[in-house]
Amino acid sequence: MQYVPFSAVKPEGFWERRIRINKESTIPTIYKRFSETGRFAAAKCVLGEGMPQPHIFWDSDVAKWIEACAYSLTVNPDPALEKQVDEIIDDMAAAQLEDGYYNCYYIPCELENRFTNRDHHELYCAGHLTEAAVAYYKATGKDKLLNMMKKYLDLIEKIFMVEDSAAFCTPGHEEIELALVRIYELTGDEKYKNLCAHFINARGCREKDVAQGHWSGDHSYDQTHLPVREQKEAKGHSVRALYLFSGMADLARLTGDEKLISACKTLFENISTKRMYVTGGVGSSSHGETFTQDYDLPNDMAYSETCASIALEYFCRRMLALDIDSKYADAAERAIYNCILGGVSLDGRSFFYVNPLEINLSRHERYEKWHDIKENLLTQRVEVFSCSCCPPNLARIIASFAGDVYGYDDNTIYAHHFMAGEAGWDGIKIKLDTRYPNFGDVRFTLSGAKGKKFAVRIPGWCRYATLNGEKLPHAPVKGYLYLDVTEDEQVFDFYFEMKPRFVAANPETDGDNGKVCVMKGPLVYCAESVINGGVNLCTVSLDTSADIGSVPDEESGGMRLTAKAFIDNPHDELYFDYNPEDKTGINLTLLPYYAYANHGESDMQVWLRVK
Amino acid sequence: MQYVPFSAVKPEGFWERRIRINKESTIPTIYKRFSETGRFAAAKCVLGEGMPQPHIFWDSDVAKWIEACAYSLTVNPDPALEKQVDEIIDDMAAAQLEDGYYNCYYIPCELENRFTNRDHHELYCAGHLTEAAVAYYKATGKDKLLNMMKKYLDLIEKIFMVEDSAAFCTPGHEEIELALVRIYELTGDEKYKNLCAHFINARGCREKDVAQGHWSGDHSYDQTHLPVREQKEAKGHSVRALYLFSGMADLARLTGDEKLISACKTLFENISTKRMYVTGGVGSSSHGETFTQDYDLPNDMAYSETCASIALEYFCRRMLALDIDSKYADAAERAIYNCILGGVSLDGRSFFYVNPLEINLSRHERYEKWHDIKENLLTQRVEVFSCSCCPPNLARIIASFAGDVYGYDDNTIYAHHFMAGEAGWDGIKIKLDTRYPNFGDVRFTLSGAKGKKFAVRIPGWCRYATLNGEKLPHAPVKGYLYLDVTEDEQVFDFYFEMKPRFVAANPETDGDNGKVCVMKGPLVYCAESVINGGVNLCTVSLDTSADIGSVPDEESGGMRLTAKAFIDNPHDELYFDYNPEDKTGINLTLLPYYAYANHGESDMQVWLRVK
Repeated sequence: MQYVPFSAVKPEGFWERRIRINKESTIPTIYKRFSETGRFAAAKCVLGEGMPQPHIFWDSDVAKWIEACAYSLTVNPDPALEKQVDEIIDDMAAAQLEDGYYNCYYIPCELENRFTNRDHHELYCAGHLTEAAVAYYKATGKDKLLNMMKKYLDLIEKIFMVEDSAAFCTPGHEEIELALVRIYELTGDEKYKNLCAHFINARGCREKDVAQGHWSGDHSYDQTHLPVREQKEAKGHSVRALYLFSGMADLARLTGDEKLISACKTLFENISTKRMYVTGGVGSSSHGETFTQDYDLPNDMAYSETCASIALEYFCRRMLALDIDSKYADAAERAIYNCILGGVSLDGRSFFYVNPLEINLSRHERYEKWHDIKENLLTQRVEVFSCSCCPPNLARIIASFAGDVYGYDDNTIYAHHFMAGEAGWDGIKIKLDTRYPNFGDVRFTLSGAKGKKFAVRIPGWCRYATLNGEKLPHAPVKGYLYLDVTEDEQVFDFYFEMKPRFVAANPETDGDNGKVCVMKGPLVYCAESVINGGVNLCTVSLDTSADIGSVPDEESGGMRLTAKAFIDNPHDELYFDYNPEDKTGINLTLLPYYAYANHGESDMQVWLRVK
Repeated sequence: MQYVPFSAVKPEGFWERRIRINKESTIPTIYKRFSETGRFAAAKCVLGEGMPQPHIFWDSDVAKWIEACAYSLTVNPDPALEKQVDEIIDDMAAAQLEDGYYNCYYIPCELENRFTNRDHHELYCAGHLTEAAVAYYKATGKDKLLNMMKKYLDLIEKIFMVEDSAAFCTPGHEEIELALVRIYELTGDEKYKNLCAHFINARGCREKDVAQGHWSGDHSYDQTHLPVREQKEAKGHSVRALYLFSGMADLARLTGDEKLISACKTLFENISTKRMYVTGGVGSSSHGETFTQDYDLPNDMAYSETCASIALEYFCRRMLALDIDSKYADAAERAIYNCILGGVSLDGRSFFYVNPLEINLSRHERYEKWHDIKENLLTQRVEVFSCSCCPPNLARIIASFAGDVYGYDDNTIYAHHFMAGEAGWDGIKIKLDTRYPNFGDVRFTLSGAKGKKFAVRIPGWCRYATLNGEKLPHAPVKGYLYLDVTEDEQVFDFYFEMKPRFVAANPETDGDNGKVCVMKGPLVYCAESVINGGVNLCTVSLDTSADIGSVPDEESGGMRLTAKAFIDNPHDELYFDYNPEDKTGINLTLLPYYAYANHGESDMQVWLRVK
C-alpha cells in the first residue's frame, strides 16, 4: 500500500480550517519566536556577540519548521515564506564543513568533541534536517538542503558504518532511522536503507553504547536495553521510542523482515492496549518523559507530550502501510483528533507540551512539587518553550496529515481517514462529503476506479454503520470493508452512527476506575469548570442512564455536549455518613478535548465519575 | 479540668495488651537499635574512634526513649531497664558544660557555633530532654536529669530572654514551649511559664528569625510567617506546627489569654474539618512533611507522619483541658486508634514513618519518583530509620495514653476515652467493663463519687446510644452527657451502637470522591489484597446497600469485617463501552487500619469505590 500524497488531497471543512490556521498563524508564530530566540541565526554556526549559545537540538527545531513550510508551500505557494526558508538553508549550506559535517551547536562550540556524546542529539538533528531536505525538495524542486544532507549522510555512513570510529554506535535519540528511509524512498539509493538498517540492528548490541552510560541510569531510556527485535514493551523516553519504532516499521516494510514485523506488532499492542491515554497521549511520566508500566495512566499527572502523540501517529501510519488493519488507523485517529490537535490553540498561536487529562487548579501548588519538568506543566497554552520541539512538530503534522487519508495498491483504493474534500491521483478521483469528525455521514463519490476494490475503514468506535441506507453488505476484514467499484462514477454513502457514548477504561487502569469519558465519534470530550459555572469537577458525577445532547460549536469547529450529571451536596464536616442520594442534578457542558484551555484558567477533567 | 495521671489507671483488655507489647518489645527494640547506631554513646558528647557523627536531633530520640521508659517504670518497675536509663543520664550529666549547655552534637562537633542556626534543633532537643527529666523524676524520684535540665534552662533563659544574644529568637523546631509548661507544672516555678510565653509570643515577630531565612524559602514552614495569635491555618511542617499549637494551648490554659485561646480553636477547626485524614493523619505532603491546602488529602501519596498524628493527639489533649468539648477527644481518638497504633506492628518491633491510605505496589516504582523522602516511604514497617523520631514517640504515647482517659475538677468526673480496667484517685474509683474499641458496651461502676457530676463523652461516631438500657436521659452538652452520681457505688451502663458504617469525605476532598471508607466505632478499616486472594483493589467497589459482617480477630485484637463488594470484570481492551453491570460479586475482608501490613507486601486501600 502506498499513501496518496497530501499534495493530492484538497481538504474542506474541519481540516481546511485547521490547515489554514496552521499556515496563517502557526508557521509565522513559530518563525517569529525562533527568530527572537536566535534559532535561525544559529544556523550560521557562528557565535556572535550577544547571541545565546545554541542548544544541542536547535537544528531539529529549525528543520521541523522548514519541513512544515515545505508542506504548506506545496499546496499554498508563498514567495515570502519560501524566501525565509531559502535564507536559512543558504546559511546552513554555507556553514557546512568541508567533510560534510553540520551541527549548529558543535561547529561553533566544541567541534573537537563531535560524535563523542551519544545523548547529544547530533544524529537526531541530522535526521530532522534530512526529513526537511526531502520535503523541501519535493515542495520546491530546490536541492541545496538535499545535497547538503547527502554529503552529511555520507560522512555519517563513513564514521558510523564504515569506520565505526565514533565514540558510540547508535544515536541516543532516534529519528535518523526513519529519515534515512525517506531519503531512500526519494532517491532509491540503497546506501540510505543500509545505514538505516545498520542503526536499527546495532541498537542494544554494542559495548560502546552501553559504555557511554546514561543519565537515567537505565538503558531502556533510549531503547538500548535489548536488541530491537527482542523488545516487547514500550520503554523509556516516549518520543525516542516511537521514532525508533517508526523507523523499524519502515525498514520492516522495505525488507519483509518477519522478526522485525513481529517486534513492531508486539510493541504496538503493548502501547495501544496498555500504555495509551484515551486521547492518544503516551509517555505518562514526567520523569524522563517516559513510558512507565502497563495501565499506569494517571490523569492529573499525565505527561503525554505532544511530540509523543505525534510520534505515535507516525508509527501507526507506518504500521498501516505494513499491515492493513484498522487498529492502526484507529490509534492514529485517536491521537490526531485529541492529544495532537489539543496541542495547539484554536487560533494556532500557542501550544501545549504536556497534555494532562485532568487539571485541578486548587491542587496546582502540589502538582508542581510532583513534576520534574515544571516549565512545561501548564494549564494554558503558551507561545514558546525553551524546549520547543512540539510547536514545529505540530505544524508539520497538521500540514501533512492529508497524506494519511488515502492509500492504494494495484487493485485497491483505501480510505483510512475521513477528510471532507477531493483527492485525485493516477486518473482516480474521490470526492468526500462529510461533516466528520462531528457527524457520521460519510459520502464517497469515486470516479476512474472501475474494476478496483474500495476498502473503507469502519472506525473502531462505530457501533452501527450503514452503506447506502442499508446494513453493511458483508463483514469487514481487519476493520476494512472491501467493496467492488463497478461504475465509472460510483457513490458509497456511509453512515457511521455517532451518538455520544460513555467509555470505560480497562479496570487495571487505576486512575480511571469508577469513571467514564464521553466520546462522540473519534473525539474525546472533557468538562471545564470555567464553562460550567465554576463547578468543582471532582464533585461531579455523570448520569450514564441519560442521553447526551449536542449542538455545533462554531468556535472549536466541533460540538458542545450537554450531559445530565449530579453535584455532591456541600458539607461543613470533613467526614460523615455516606448517603448515595446526597447530590443535586445539573446539566454539564462538555467540549472537545482539543478545544479545552481556550477560555482562561480552569479546572478540567476528561474522566468523570459515574453516579 | 485536670487529667487523672496514667499511673492511676490500670488498663485491661485492648490497651493492656498494647502497653505490654510496648514494654516487652518496643522499648527494648528501640534500645537495641539506638545502641547499635551510636545514639546512646553519643550522650557522652565525645567523638570516639569509629563513632558516627551525632545527628543534630539525636538528643531528642534518646530523650523520648527515656520518657517512654519513665512511664513504663511507673507502672511496671524493672531494675534492669532503670539501670540502662540511669547510665545514659549519668553520661549526659557528666558531659553537661559548666554553664549548663548540653547538646550531643554541638559539644563535640562545633561548640563555637551553638545557638547560631535556628533550624538546628537545639531548643527542640532541650525540650524533649526536659519532658524526659520531668517524667523520669515523677517515675523514680531521681532528680539528676531534672537538675541538669534546670541548669540548662537557666542558660536558655539567659541567652534568649535576658540577653537576647543568640543568632535567633525562637526555635526553628518547636517543642520546648510545651516542655516548659510541663516543668512549670512540676515545680511551680514561674520562670518556666514566662520563658514559654516568651518563645510563643516572639514567634513571627522578630527580624532576627526572618533574617535566618529558611531552606524551604517559606517562613510558614516553621510557623514564623505570622505572630501566633494571627495564624488561622495549619501551615508548614506538621510536627513543628502541632507541637507549637500544643504549647499555645497549654499557655492559653494557664493564662486565660482569649486571643491565644481563639487562635488555638481556629487552628484546631482548620485541621479537623479540612486537613486531617480519616485515620487522624495530618501533614499530607512529603515535600517538607507539611500541611498543604484545605482538602488536599491524597491517599496514595499521603505523608501523614506518625509523629504528626502523635502531635495532633497532644494538641487535642490540651484543647480538651481548655474546653470540654467532645470534638477534641473525637479527633484524639481518631488519631490514636488509627494512624498512631498503625505506626507500630502488632508485635511492637517495627514502625512506619509515613502512613499512606492507599498502596498500589504495581505503581510503586512511580511513587518513588513522586516522593521527596524515599527512605521513609515503606509498604512494610521496619525496625529503624536514620531519622528515627517516630519509634520512641510511639513508645511514649502508648505508655502514657491512659493519662488521657479520665479527668476531674472540683465537681465533675470526666470520661473522655473508654479504656477497660480500673482507675482510682482521691478516694474515687472507676471500674470500666468494655470491649471497646470493638464493641459499644461501656459499663462504668463508680464509687466514692456521690454528689459529683459524671460527664461521659458520647463519641462523635455514635449514631444511637443508650444508658442503662434506655435512651439517654437528656441531651449531651458539647458532646458530654452530664449525669448526677447519687449513690456510693453506682453503675452507668452505656451502649454505643457500633455497627460498621460507610463514611464519606467532604466532596471537596478530591482523592475520596465516589469512595467510602468503612468504620466501626472509632476504628477505620481497610482492605488488603493479600488477605483477599490478591485482588486488584482499584477494581473493587462496595455494595453500600448491604450490611457488613464482623468476627473477632485475635491477631490484631480487633475485628475482621466482611463487606459485599463487586470486582470489575477483566477486559483485554484498554477502552470500551461502559456497562454499569460489568462486575462480579465478591466478599471483601477488611482489617483495622492499624493492623495492615502485618501479612507481607500487599496493596491496601482505606477508601474504596462505591458501586
